[in-house]
Amino acid sequence: MPIDLSVVGYELAPMEFTYEQRDIMLYALGVGAGVEADELKFVYENGLEVLPTFGVVPPFPALMGLVGVEGVDINVVMLLHGEQYLEVRKYPIPVAGKLISKPRISNIYDKTKGALVEMEVDTVDESGDVVFHNVFGSFIRGEGDFGGERGPEPGNEPPERDPDKVAEMKTLPQQAMIYRLSGDYNPLHIDPNISGMAGYDRPILHGLCTFGHVGRAVLREYCGNDPAKFKAIKVRFSRPVFPGDTIITEMWKESDDKIIVRASTKERPDEYCLTSAAVWLNT
Amino acid sequence: MPIDLSVVGYELAPMEFTYEQRDIMLYALGVGAGVEADELKFVYENGLEVLPTFGVVPPFPALMGLVGVEGVDINVVMLLHGEQYLEVRKYPIPVAGKLISKPRISNIYDKTKGALVEMEVDTVDESGDVVFHNVFGSFIRGEGDFGGERGPEPGNEPPERDPDKVAEMKTLPQQAMIYRLSGDYNPLHIDPNISGMAGYDRPILHGLCTFGHVGRAVLREYCGNDPAKFKAIKVRFSRPVFPGDTIITEMWKESDDKIIVRASTKERPDEYCLTSAAVWLNT
Repeated sequence: MPIDLSVVGYELAPMEFTYEQRDIMLYALGVGAGVEADELKFVYENGLEVLPTFGVVPPFPALMGLVGVEGVDINVVMLLHGEQYLEVRKYPIPVAGKLISKPRISNIYDKTKGALVEMEVDTVDESGDVVFHNVFGSFIRGEGDFGGERGPEPGNEPPERDPDKVAEMKTLPQQAMIYRLSGDYNPLHIDPNISGMAGYDRPILHGLCTFGHVGRAVLREYCGNDPAKFKAIKVRFSRPVFPGDTIITEMWKESDDKIIVRASTKERPDEYCLTSAAVWLNT
Repeated sequence: MPIDLSVVGYELAPMEFTYEQRDIMLYALGVGAGVEADELKFVYENGLEVLPTFGVVPPFPALMGLVGVEGVDINVVMLLHGEQYLEVRKYPIPVAGKLISKPRISNIYDKTKGALVEMEVDTVDESGDVVFHNVFGSFIRGEGDFGGERGPEPGNEPPERDPDKVAEMKTLPQQAMIYRLSGDYNPLHIDPNISGMAGYDRPILHGLCTFGHVGRAVLREYCGNDPAKFKAIKVRFSRPVFPGDTIITEMWKESDDKIIVRASTKERPDEYCLTSAAVWLNT
């Protein structure tokens, strides 16, 4: 297989991310915040707070950084963003500043139909404290079945009972156009020619945009919109969402500090777009 | 009166504006572009073109620059953005770069109920060519009736006949939140407390956001979405538009190179929000 397993442990060059308040507000608009009065503080510089899921933005370039690593010979079109884990380690998240992300290939699992490559990234502030800890899970289609370890099962299955809370969020037809200005310019999300080649009728929403909507739902329902109560989130990207869809987030309170989550759309209620998902709370 | 008429001719310090493609795309989303297929080129870096009305963004700080000028002692809350003229003098508009705007107080007219202060601004590129020529018209309530000249009548009245073309554009509930990231952070457009103090039920849309929608309407109907065919635009801001309203632009072809324009909203069809307006075409 064209991934040399000895790349596990490889550290990519640190990535710098400088941002200002405008970037924070633009991110929040990109994940649908702003219209509800209780979310004004995420899109307005007067009392501005940072949505916790913004934490995936500074280290985002690490996801594609895999492609240039020596010992990794993969076709970028076979790479799918499969899973995401984000933990916010330091609150409050600064509304502006400079952060450094340090990516490291942490695991390569054999999922038979493909390889799951995990990239851990610590993002530190100027005092050296870790603000965000991410694990980007890339699924490389066609590169599995190499006799490697399967890795842990994703877990976070919803219980049998009805969800404890459900949130509906209508996305905008231009949702992906706004979200992409936070740094993911993959044309799959805007160019009908590119999305057509990938087998979709039209451009699809960024998985991390859906992720941001789901994060907002839990933040409102279980954190009173206080970012500091939001510790971590893990999701699997299972199916596409289209701009304009209404995202339905189902939430189950598993314990005082853990909410199991699953998302579908009003347009396709039986297709789960975000699965094996959970949010952990600071209690 | 607290405006010394001898400030006419006063030149403000040059204002620098550095921008990148992302700013061009964000502006276009701010004025409602992107959803229609024929406007993709305004929000996508592949083949990106600049909406002509972006020309008001680089010199925008000049509008408020009036307040700090020696010899001008006005209360900023009495200043209304009353009129705008924009002429694009050089095409294609660069999708990124550095521009310098040179504002100059060009006229002060006595409109009885207030003073109309005109600020002319030439915006030049790095080779020194004028790209945009703007006239910002500020209406200073309560500062009229000082025995000055009334100035020219606004003109551009629509003819008696039905409009030749009509365009409807639905704005987003978060339209002002997106538009303001192009540089007009006046809280009147986002903060219900501030808009309440100004006498509005809720935050109002930026006049220049409506202006951008109207510009798009003419650009599509009379320029085939080719920016280079759009020479100039002049408008008077008559009444507020609210985010979420549907802007109705009526257009009358006055001659081969002039389109008379008027805008209202579907919500309040008898209130004209943009009047005495016209677009001139390059033929």
